[in-house]
Amino acid sequence: MTDDILLIPGPIVISKNVQAALGTPSVSHTSAEFASTFSSALKNVRKVFKAGDSGQPVVLAGSGTLGWDIAASNLVQPGDKVLVLSTGFFSDSFAECLKVYGADVDKITAPLGDAVPLDAIRDALSKVSYNMITITHVDTSTAVLTELEPICKAVKELSPETLIVVDGVCSIGCEVFEFEKWGIDYALTASQKALGVPPGLSVSMLSDRAVKVAQERPFESSFFASLKRWLPIMVNYEQGKPAYFATPAVQLVNALDVSLREILDQGIDARVAKHKQTSDWIKAKLTKELGLKLVSVNDKVSAHGLTAAYTENPPKVISGVKQHGIVIAGGIHKQIKDKYIRIGHMGVSACDDSRQDMEKCFEAIKESL
Amino acid sequence: MTDDILLIPGPIVISKNVQAALGTPSVSHTSAEFASTFSSALKNVRKVFKAGDSGQPVVLAGSGTLGWDIAASNLVQPGDKVLVLSTGFFSDSFAECLKVYGADVDKITAPLGDAVPLDAIRDALSKVSYNMITITHVDTSTAVLTELEPICKAVKELSPETLIVVDGVCSIGCEVFEFEKWGIDYALTASQKALGVPPGLSVSMLSDRAVKVAQERPFESSFFASLKRWLPIMVNYEQGKPAYFATPAVQLVNALDVSLREILDQGIDARVAKHKQTSDWIKAKLTKELGLKLVSVNDKVSAHGLTAAYTENPPKVISGVKQHGIVIAGGIHKQIKDKYIRIGHMGVSACDDSRQDMEKCFEAIKESL
Repeated sequence: MTDDILLIPGPIVISKNVQAALGTPSVSHTSAEFASTFSSALKNVRKVFKAGDSGQPVVLAGSGTLGWDIAASNLVQPGDKVLVLSTGFFSDSFAECLKVYGADVDKITAPLGDAVPLDAIRDALSKVSYNMITITHVDTSTAVLTELEPICKAVKELSPETLIVVDGVCSIGCEVFEFEKWGIDYALTASQKALGVPPGLSVSMLSDRAVKVAQERPFESSFFASLKRWLPIMVNYEQGKPAYFATPAVQLVNALDVSLREILDQGIDARVAKHKQTSDWIKAKLTKELGLKLVSVNDKVSAHGLTAAYTENPPKVISGVKQHGIVIAGGIHKQIKDKYIRIGHMGVSACDDSRQDMEKCFEAIKESL
Repeated sequence: MTDDILLIPGPIVISKNVQAALGTPSVSHTSAEFASTFSSALKNVRKVFKAGDSGQPVVLAGSGTLGWDIAASNLVQPGDKVLVLSTGFFSDSFAECLKVYGADVDKITAPLGDAVPLDAIRDALSKVSYNMITITHVDTSTAVLTELEPICKAVKELSPETLIVVDGVCSIGCEVFEFEKWGIDYALTASQKALGVPPGLSVSMLSDRAVKVAQERPFESSFFASLKRWLPIMVNYEQGKPAYFATPAVQLVNALDVSLREILDQGIDARVAKHKQTSDWIKAKLTKELGLKLVSVNDKVSAHGLTAAYTENPPKVISGVKQHGIVIAGGIHKQIKDKYIRIGHMGVSACDDSRQDMEKCFEAIKESL
């Protein structure tokens, strides 16, 4: 077992309490004890997503990818028009998932390192009646942040019937995110990102309108990802009542419950602000002190849970950093795959200054260049 | 946190080492360390399934149910004929899953508590050219065991092109199971059953023939469950090489690796024999000493990883047993839902005599009747 500090953009370092909640004995998935834990976790998902009291949170054994299947197989039907805003590898993969389930996808691809211009989005929304728009809040491949609020406003103005779907995998818990206020219909994330839990859970939230679309769908396009099956289960669990469709990942849900409590104890706004502070610090150090160039083209489109920076010889930097006990990641955007590194700064590594994870990371990168 | 002994038919009591492997710090899913663990787990899946060196094991974040989606969305196409042998709730749910993905399902339903007669299966196989047959080795709702070998032989004789798919959720690791020898094409289980790991993983095995069917499929019917996406990933991980489609549940895979080693240290044949011994013991005690009647109609169709027995007032028995610190389950077969109890005896509870889990369970049931 390694003592390395894991600073990739997920999985992230987990807290001691989260780790303890994971390594616990078996409990029945239909026990009152587990139903109470699951209820607490689901209620706190609402708070972290800022989702209010309507709609329905959904937590399934799976991964972030499963969240795409949930959207693609429940919220649109084959032939439905979907507008995908692409800021990298993960936006493109979401588009692929939508196509597998039969959606008719139009994609607007941002210039590398930038977000899709609002004008282009407004233009598309004016010309075609889309059933759904998908926005990757932060594309983990480029560390590009897309400002959600103006896009949501444009959709409400130009095409209010269009469902707003947000991939919040590398954003929810570390970026300003307002599910209810911005009128988002479906947002998804994964346990191993800013939620601070090991991988293995798909965590998502539906608006009332999205619940209705899923419930009234005349046929199912998936089984394990079917909201017709899962919605009554989630409604029951949230009320503390056990229900069964497929067995939930009990220990991971325990860990999620503990992690969400930790996040809410800090306060979601304070936590997001702390991620920004940490992000600003490491980005300034890398660019000003080491002269590195970020993949994201300006501050406005720079994510706060990870940093993507061009370096000479990334494999050498990554292995050099590893010798200092720090694990960072390489690139995965096909155009620049071998030209940049990615550093994750989510959860305790971003929030607990006493750990000095980012300082150690910076020193290790500096030495390795 | 409870100290109760969990004797439902999954999740089951996990060993101390499995629990420790779960509660571990984060490790990168693309690290050499994790790839080595995943490789070991996949190789040992082959051994526990008795699958030999061909085909491909697949371990995904999910549940047993996801294994149905894998079969239904990769191994048959819409309109393909599937013969489902039903011995209870879970066989029927598998049929539902197949229909969601467009299969044309014929179902032969066994008399309650019995397996489907071989003659009826031979008859169906003679009349229709099926693309797939599904057999629920043990239906967890009824504790009915279906003898696989004669059915596999009948398929090879009468309809050799038919893919043989086995739901081994409550059997693999505790029943005699020969993936390679019997010519099975796809078998699935879940981590929280006889594999002795907490819930959160779908664990399955494909034959070479099934791999080919999945690879040559002209279109995809699912994304998260798509074998076209996952097969290259699993091939790589088994070779110790990290690969990415969706993030695996790292800590659960650690736990799976530890549990499979424990199973193979005992020896899979010895372990299966021990489950039979434990099962025979509890069934004899319940029927002979307490006069209870089993749901399964005779020894030949009685599972060895759980026992389903009729009792007066099952809720009273379950809550009585709970007062002795033992958790057992109620019924879920709709015809007899409120008339029977289910006792799980898989993993350490069946194999580690020093725990005396089954003795304690029997005494608790006796007192509660």
